[in-house]
Amino acid sequence: MAQREGTRKSARFTFAANMKRFRKALGLSQERLADVCGLHRTYIGSVERGERNISIDNMEVIAVALKESVIRLLEPDEGSSKG
Amino acid sequence: MAQREGTRKSARFTFAANMKRFRKALGLSQERLADVCGLHRTYIGSVERGERNISIDNMEVIAVALKESVIRLLEPDEGSSKG
Repeated sequence: MAQREGTRKSARFTFAANMKRFRKALGLSQERLADVCGLHRTYIGSVERGERNISIDNMEVIAVALKESVIRLLEPDEGSSKG
Repeated sequence: MAQREGTRKSARFTFAANMKRFRKALGLSQERLADVCGLHRTYIGSVERGERNISIDNMEVIAVALKESVIRLLEPDEGSSKG
């Protein structure tokens, strides 16, 4: 299928990277996060690799489990270059 | 199906309301926005009513079409109470 204009998938990959970062910051395994979310471990893994076109409801489920907001999960990580 | 913990769907409805607000601010009809996005008009309408569990890729397509960021589309509207 042709790529639509505007289909850049940058949100998907930003979400994926932040999700992984916040999960690790909480010391959670993918399995544990999956349990908390009521989602499957393989699903969590594929979202973290940017393979899944995750839905807004599942984004919110994951954000709640990570004690973050959906917005925070979509923010570019600028912390890595700060002191 | 039982509601999972954390499935609050507030992100879905915030996105829906902002999408409608930004679309109107640009003077776009649902039809026109649908054309720009390469999505169907009825899909746009159902997303604006919060009926659709929209995917992150489509959120980005719509954000680009509205000249906004996905984050802006998820921010609570505090402007309505400001001068």
